[in-house]
Amino acid sequence: MATNIQYTLAQRPEGYPDDTTWKRLEEAVPTPGAGEVLVRNIYVSLDPAMRGWLNDAKSYIPPVQIGEVMRAICVGIVEASNHDKFAVGTHVVGMGGVQQYWLTNGEGLRAVDGSRAPLPLFISTLGMTGFTAYFGLLNVGQPKEGETVLVSAAAGAVGSVVGQVAKIKGCHVVGIAGGPEKCAYVKDELGFDECIDYKGKDMASMAAAIKATCPKGVDVYFDNVGGDILDAALTRINMYARIVVCGAISQYNATTPIQGPSNYLSLLVNRARMEGMVVMDYAKDYGKAIQDMGGWIMQGKLKSKEFIVEGIDTFPETLLRLFNGDKTGKLILQVTDK
Amino acid sequence: MATNIQYTLAQRPEGYPDDTTWKRLEEAVPTPGAGEVLVRNIYVSLDPAMRGWLNDAKSYIPPVQIGEVMRAICVGIVEASNHDKFAVGTHVVGMGGVQQYWLTNGEGLRAVDGSRAPLPLFISTLGMTGFTAYFGLLNVGQPKEGETVLVSAAAGAVGSVVGQVAKIKGCHVVGIAGGPEKCAYVKDELGFDECIDYKGKDMASMAAAIKATCPKGVDVYFDNVGGDILDAALTRINMYARIVVCGAISQYNATTPIQGPSNYLSLLVNRARMEGMVVMDYAKDYGKAIQDMGGWIMQGKLKSKEFIVEGIDTFPETLLRLFNGDKTGKLILQVTDK
Repeated sequence: MATNIQYTLAQRPEGYPDDTTWKRLEEAVPTPGAGEVLVRNIYVSLDPAMRGWLNDAKSYIPPVQIGEVMRAICVGIVEASNHDKFAVGTHVVGMGGVQQYWLTNGEGLRAVDGSRAPLPLFISTLGMTGFTAYFGLLNVGQPKEGETVLVSAAAGAVGSVVGQVAKIKGCHVVGIAGGPEKCAYVKDELGFDECIDYKGKDMASMAAAIKATCPKGVDVYFDNVGGDILDAALTRINMYARIVVCGAISQYNATTPIQGPSNYLSLLVNRARMEGMVVMDYAKDYGKAIQDMGGWIMQGKLKSKEFIVEGIDTFPETLLRLFNGDKTGKLILQVTDK
Repeated sequence: MATNIQYTLAQRPEGYPDDTTWKRLEEAVPTPGAGEVLVRNIYVSLDPAMRGWLNDAKSYIPPVQIGEVMRAICVGIVEASNHDKFAVGTHVVGMGGVQQYWLTNGEGLRAVDGSRAPLPLFISTLGMTGFTAYFGLLNVGQPKEGETVLVSAAAGAVGSVVGQVAKIKGCHVVGIAGGPEKCAYVKDELGFDECIDYKGKDMASMAAAIKATCPKGVDVYFDNVGGDILDAALTRINMYARIVVCGAISQYNATTPIQGPSNYLSLLVNRARMEGMVVMDYAKDYGKAIQDMGGWIMQGKLKSKEFIVEGIDTFPETLLRLFNGDKTGKLILQVTDK
């Protein structure tokens, strides 16, 4: 009988998740009941947002409960089905969690055409990650041609797409990333105009680097990191600038109070705004994002980079690559064979 | 020969301005040259923004220079004129500064009809203070009927107007003020639904008080104070809430780094926005604000309260009432006779 390996939440972490955070379980692969679908996950999306789901706090979705399989977006294949919308062999995207198999009544499940793009793309640039970049930049940031767009975590899954889409829209685009290799990747491979290496820089030298690379000031700052980098960016924003608050990865594992942006009064001086976004609000327009971004990928204007680690049992350590910077592009865990 | 008493900036303060900040000068009242107007200031507006103008930092207007007369908005009367737009005896509003007389070429000077309202109103509710409340609330905060509007410094010049206008627009309105007397004034005289006394409350009890008085959450928070109160408000905002950053009086005299809002990630969770505003951007619409607010005052729907202190030589100590809470309503210095 086939086995399903699962990772459940054993206890809530303080600071970084570690081995005590998770419990590895094995169960028999379940059988679908009436109206149900059995999905085999192939690729599991590992995202900074997952850290937030571990906290017992009110947020945009409820926290993962102790004993529950860790929540995650997956792309997989239907292995057995009692559901007329999802036939065996269909590729699907859904909240499958960190496990190999799962049952669903089809709610929230989305069929994808695995012949049109490699499967990992559907949880990367053609999935939530790409949608976050697309809607965060275009709907919240609202960049105009010729404006300057600054993006933190520019070598990351979201940031890399934000910058490339901003280039497609005719902006001057500057990334912020950690280390010379990532900066070279952002500039040379992804085509950003400039990339600032934040490593070893204090707030004053970050602000100076932003000034040098954004000579006309910053019109849109897409923030994935928070902390000192957000504060440095606030010193260089233009009148009517838009700051997209997409994440704050520098703060997610903090065990001390979150560092608020000391320079937030720059919003007042510059009549600027700082606005949060959650990608699920744009669900009805995902189709348009897939169409646009799929087109740009085909035309070679948009590069999608996935960093795939094999083996569900690497999950606890692989997840930490989100926070220690040890990956480029979208972090994905492969949990079963293609 | 008549004398003009002036207060100039002697040195930039660290923390609160004190006697070493100012230099008192006397000069002969000047004579207007070709195209010039001599204005006698009657009332000088004292505003929290003045503290910002003392810092040698880039802002929405240049800082006041050492040796320059302290910048301030005034209402006064034309005493002599070589300008065809401003006849002797006309009441005017302009950037006259903390002094009794000044010359101007008429640029930025605005004639007001002193027969239609008491003169102090033209630098209070029918002036920049009122405009800040009006445009900050309506254009940036965009409250809808039935929504909840929370306002800090609710007994102050701007806050008191914000709350009353929000009531006129059909909102549930909650103020935050310091001490039982101010709270009684806000609730009983100004007609706010509730008023929270922030004195003696830490952030957790502020958050609890906001929860109790805003049972449906906060849709618009009009922030005049920053600091812990902003952080407490951020814990109670609704989805798509708007935070108007109008000021941060708790931080203006800080000699340590500004306290940024630790809870700013609430913007993300709630897809909310925090936006700065500077009233001068709305100059072309001041007429509409005067028309609306003048009408509401006549109809008894809007109360304008001025706290007038007589004598230009009280300026250094009177100014401090902005920061120590020792006044209710709009702080005004009377510098010459009516």
